[in-house]
Amino acid sequence: MMAHDLQRDWQPILRAFEVVLGKNGVVGRKEELLVYECDGLTSYRQRPAVVVLPRTTEEVAAAVRICVKHQIPFVARGSGTGLSGGALPVENCVLIVTSLMRQILSVDLDNQRVVVQPGVINNWVTQAVSGAGFYYAPDPSSQIVCSVGGNVAENSGGVHCLKYGVTTNHVLGLKLVLPDASMVEVGGAVPEMPGYDLTGVFVGSEGTLGIATEITLRILKVPEAIQVLLADFTSVEAAGAAVSDIIGAGVVPGGMEIMDNLSINAVEDVVATGCYPRDAAAILLVELDGLAVEVAALCERVGAICQQNGARSIVSATDAEQRLKLWKGRKAAFAAAGHLSPDYYVQDGVIPRTKLPFVLQEMQRLGQEYGYQIANVFHAGDGNLHPLILYDHKVPGALEQVEALGGEILKLCVQVGGSISGEHGIGADKRCYMPEMFTPADLETMQWVRQVFNPQGLANPGKIFPTPRTCGEAAQAKTHPFAAVERF
Amino acid sequence: MMAHDLQRDWQPILRAFEVVLGKNGVVGRKEELLVYECDGLTSYRQRPAVVVLPRTTEEVAAAVRICVKHQIPFVARGSGTGLSGGALPVENCVLIVTSLMRQILSVDLDNQRVVVQPGVINNWVTQAVSGAGFYYAPDPSSQIVCSVGGNVAENSGGVHCLKYGVTTNHVLGLKLVLPDASMVEVGGAVPEMPGYDLTGVFVGSEGTLGIATEITLRILKVPEAIQVLLADFTSVEAAGAAVSDIIGAGVVPGGMEIMDNLSINAVEDVVATGCYPRDAAAILLVELDGLAVEVAALCERVGAICQQNGARSIVSATDAEQRLKLWKGRKAAFAAAGHLSPDYYVQDGVIPRTKLPFVLQEMQRLGQEYGYQIANVFHAGDGNLHPLILYDHKVPGALEQVEALGGEILKLCVQVGGSISGEHGIGADKRCYMPEMFTPADLETMQWVRQVFNPQGLANPGKIFPTPRTCGEAAQAKTHPFAAVERF
Repeated sequence: MMAHDLQRDWQPILRAFEVVLGKNGVVGRKEELLVYECDGLTSYRQRPAVVVLPRTTEEVAAAVRICVKHQIPFVARGSGTGLSGGALPVENCVLIVTSLMRQILSVDLDNQRVVVQPGVINNWVTQAVSGAGFYYAPDPSSQIVCSVGGNVAENSGGVHCLKYGVTTNHVLGLKLVLPDASMVEVGGAVPEMPGYDLTGVFVGSEGTLGIATEITLRILKVPEAIQVLLADFTSVEAAGAAVSDIIGAGVVPGGMEIMDNLSINAVEDVVATGCYPRDAAAILLVELDGLAVEVAALCERVGAICQQNGARSIVSATDAEQRLKLWKGRKAAFAAAGHLSPDYYVQDGVIPRTKLPFVLQEMQRLGQEYGYQIANVFHAGDGNLHPLILYDHKVPGALEQVEALGGEILKLCVQVGGSISGEHGIGADKRCYMPEMFTPADLETMQWVRQVFNPQGLANPGKIFPTPRTCGEAAQAKTHPFAAVERF
Repeated sequence: MMAHDLQRDWQPILRAFEVVLGKNGVVGRKEELLVYECDGLTSYRQRPAVVVLPRTTEEVAAAVRICVKHQIPFVARGSGTGLSGGALPVENCVLIVTSLMRQILSVDLDNQRVVVQPGVINNWVTQAVSGAGFYYAPDPSSQIVCSVGGNVAENSGGVHCLKYGVTTNHVLGLKLVLPDASMVEVGGAVPEMPGYDLTGVFVGSEGTLGIATEITLRILKVPEAIQVLLADFTSVEAAGAAVSDIIGAGVVPGGMEIMDNLSINAVEDVVATGCYPRDAAAILLVELDGLAVEVAALCERVGAICQQNGARSIVSATDAEQRLKLWKGRKAAFAAAGHLSPDYYVQDGVIPRTKLPFVLQEMQRLGQEYGYQIANVFHAGDGNLHPLILYDHKVPGALEQVEALGGEILKLCVQVGGSISGEHGIGADKRCYMPEMFTPADLETMQWVRQVFNPQGLANPGKIFPTPRTCGEAAQAKTHPFAAVERF
């Protein structure tokens, strides 16, 4: 990363942006820039020098061209809901915001694909095709506000990714503006294209390889029947064992989520679903979809497995209203956690399903050791944990301790053969943990790709990859790896 | 591509290989090298200078190190069944053959993954886990002889890829020897790993980015029930319309194949299934899998759709023996085509399903124009065509005409929004058609990746990408793009 000139004269640069984007496409006033200081990882903030709002691929390319000419780092941002700081600005950067790129460009139901601009909200894709009986499968918790472009950058997941895969499994092709401002297309209309799978590399690259300006998505047929089961257990381990047995029986539910007692009570306090037993150690939500006969048979099987694992009660819902009621608490879980304490830190790690009981116990032990409560709400089917560490940022040192605890949890995930991110990305937040998963040679191989696409390092610098300057210091001084940014 | 010294003294190089691989690991005698002159694309041949047979990752790295030291191009080869010439040797190259790397290194049923060496035969993976109720989904026609390493290189497909995806959807991680002889790991044990998806880039890279030496595969549970339907139609278009309607109804069969009258009669002549009506214009084979109740319901639905589209008769099979009988002809179709004429050329293109009737008619018209018969056997569900152009290589100019006809078919696929390869790869055979699908900027972006992994161009040179030297000349002189190799 190069040093960026703080003394830069921004006036001619602002004017250059205004020439290509119009006055409404450029934000330079300090007070207007405030809202762009952070993404969903709110604990770190950095004001960008300029925010630009292009409307088309050509305008994105024009904006990037200005950045290249003046050697200004640039960061792409969708709705800013990401949880790993992937869209956190860097000092004196241009933030390229896609919120004016909200057109659904084409809908091809026959071939089950939709082309969208990156600022289109995740949920709009389903809304656009639901009348014809289709939907877009990846469904992050933030789906009513997060953008498809951000989903592509972070390779977002969601409840239904157990059966249907994460974002990368639903992106057929991309129109890209590369860091040198050139425009290319990768992938295409058919699922398997010849040559290297650059679509796959780009999805999840968190803005370090360029900016997606048109995205071709695969849509799926809405299943004939959907049923949700809610089983409650007297131990989290029993719920975990039921999950293992369900998968072991060859059943692949549409979604399979566990919430622990702390989460259950939090959501009942806040949204009062009335269907989550407050005295349960854990509840398991299982959504089954497919043909009506299939779903009925699967429900019977899953119910029996839950009972074998000691479920106290099993409730099931088939009609849409009842189903939404069962899901309501799960969907509100993160918001409800905000009522348990002034702040919470969401971790995102993956473990092999078979390690679930061990890891859940270890997390509780670590929480006690550090003196913080941990609420658990997670995608149990694919071993994607989301421990919520509860804290109060006003207590001096609390954030640092919570981050250290979060780091211990990530190391635990790696130790049992898992991963440091399931669906939130690495961003600014986790890059110092990359060496826990990858050898220097493995990381260098990824850097080859970054450097060939982004040789000047202008596209979202400081994200994904550890650098000696930041992570080396962090390891020694126990400061946050992204210490250059202003602490909130 | 650099010029390689024909006058090289191979004796010290052979000895260097023998030091690291043993005498049995090195083949240098001219007559023994004969079998390595081509892969499944038998119309072009080139003898390698040396064949080496490593047993481990370290031995592959040692072999590559010798190639780098002496600046010798190297080509990786599995079983040599590929149909696009991906493993066709280049002049004065070292062929690195993985047929001694045939160990299944680990089986983890709990987490549904198997680690294999690249020379392991595709079918062995299923055999190793079928006792426990699992299988490996990608099933190329050549599955009883082709290697997993070759499948990874070519991103192979198969009948069941309609529902379950091609090889890339089943590879979780890879141990690689890169073209500079370094060893790295990409991907891993969990499906979604942080950082760039280099596993996805490597799968389908046809040996141009290095050699996979350990492959972690995802295995699936064998479905509870499988049923196969055979419907016969009086026109290929009606069979194609049935396919569209089946997919349009939201049914995703395990496999869905069409064979035309020429293919039907060819297989009946050779394997006499007795169940393919010789007077049918086309038959449609549909395999449905899942829960027993689900499969029964789906069969009823698919049967009704076939009848609505004018199917004359529908036969169905549930037990394994009957199912195999219905599949027997399809599995033997390529072999049977060999009895229709002295030679055939298999093309591999993809089209959007909705274009099926138009493209099938156009192909017949093109065949008549060129004066060659075309038999059609194809993965109808995903629009992956496999026209077999029948010819006799002894007729002067026939191969050139057939290749030109094959090229016209590829261009037709691209024109309707499809692709020049569904599952056979680009290799040596189709690289001059890459500009039909990709702009110069798109191809250059892929080249960036190739050059960063393979800056000296030693790893499988001359594959995938067009070069002005070969394709430029080919376009002018109508010679084969790989004209440097010996014509068979």
